[in-house]
Amino acid sequence: MQIAIVLFDRFTGLDAVGPYETLGRLPDAETVFVAERTGPVRSDTGNLAITADKSLAEVPRPDVVVVPGGPGQTAQMENATLLDWLRTTDTTSAWTTSVCTGSLLLGAAGLLDGRRATSHWLALDVLKRFGAEPTGERVVFDGKYVTAAGVSSGIDMGLTLLGRIAGDGHAQAVQLLTEYDPQPPYDAGAPHKAPAHLVEEFRAKSRFLLA
Amino acid sequence: MQIAIVLFDRFTGLDAVGPYETLGRLPDAETVFVAERTGPVRSDTGNLAITADKSLAEVPRPDVVVVPGGPGQTAQMENATLLDWLRTTDTTSAWTTSVCTGSLLLGAAGLLDGRRATSHWLALDVLKRFGAEPTGERVVFDGKYVTAAGVSSGIDMGLTLLGRIAGDGHAQAVQLLTEYDPQPPYDAGAPHKAPAHLVEEFRAKSRFLLA
Repeated sequence: MQIAIVLFDRFTGLDAVGPYETLGRLPDAETVFVAERTGPVRSDTGNLAITADKSLAEVPRPDVVVVPGGPGQTAQMENATLLDWLRTTDTTSAWTTSVCTGSLLLGAAGLLDGRRATSHWLALDVLKRFGAEPTGERVVFDGKYVTAAGVSSGIDMGLTLLGRIAGDGHAQAVQLLTEYDPQPPYDAGAPHKAPAHLVEEFRAKSRFLLA
Repeated sequence: MQIAIVLFDRFTGLDAVGPYETLGRLPDAETVFVAERTGPVRSDTGNLAITADKSLAEVPRPDVVVVPGGPGQTAQMENATLLDWLRTTDTTSAWTTSVCTGSLLLGAAGLLDGRRATSHWLALDVLKRFGAEPTGERVVFDGKYVTAAGVSSGIDMGLTLLGRIAGDGHAQAVQLLTEYDPQPPYDAGAPHKAPAHLVEEFRAKSRFLLA
């Protein structure tokens, strides 16, 4: 099996590395970071660059497609090369997946019409533009389409999909080896749990960004 | 403030990217990936390469040092350039931190003698060689030394340290924006929770690797 993780300028680092570290431990699978052009691709902070080892054109038939999100997703909504690649690879993929606002790219490619899907909590409503039905769940399966909520949810998505493909035992082994026994120091990881003023502050900013 | 995240051949990706995505959101801070030489550094799977933007020599006085682990840590235990850099930067750092077996590198540099510390669950006992007192906790503070358990625990460490430095509100904002509301599909992320045969299998393998 081949797992292709897409990179683009100003992606969010953990969106891509969460699935890499979990799903990427699939036995006998090749994980490859891909982008429009090969070479280092900078994340949203500018401080992290991950190398795209292959171009999109060099990876025409991955078994699993993983699309991260990040502030750079907005510009990619107009990138015909990427959207065409998403549509083409989807015709043969076993699983087409996203983390965070990566689901908006799947939506823009026309792949989520009529499907249940999720995204970063700030972007959930935008899914409706593409005919998708947003849910508040952290990991959403609809047939072969798997979408995850914001940033860190790609770890949960990666483990869940790993279990579906390779069996529970293998996914549990990866959870044990990555010591994924989360103990967040706060309980503010979702809008219904976080301090209300923070939720309001980010909603106000995102109305501008996602308009 | 300057945060330096160390890279070396065969590091574990999430060890480095967890703190990057959380602690790296510290306001007015610069996060820089560093390695012995600049350029792409390959992770343990060979499929992920993160660019070291600066050499160790170019970053002599970071405020925060973050040392990831991974299978490549064993070879680094003999790397005098890295161990010297860890000792030197520690004389001026505000925080010296590690994720996973990165704590063994701090130990090998002589920085954990007499201190409470943690590491990947498979490597906890090795800490004793360096005079450290291993604990089973996920994130351990001992003065300015902060060590985290395996791989994914760097996210918890990053958020915890972010709260100490920038205040709870800022850390909660980062938790909300990274939607860190973990929902693992299994409860196998620690040796006392995982299926016993998996724990035994990995302990048997690690006795060889860590001997």
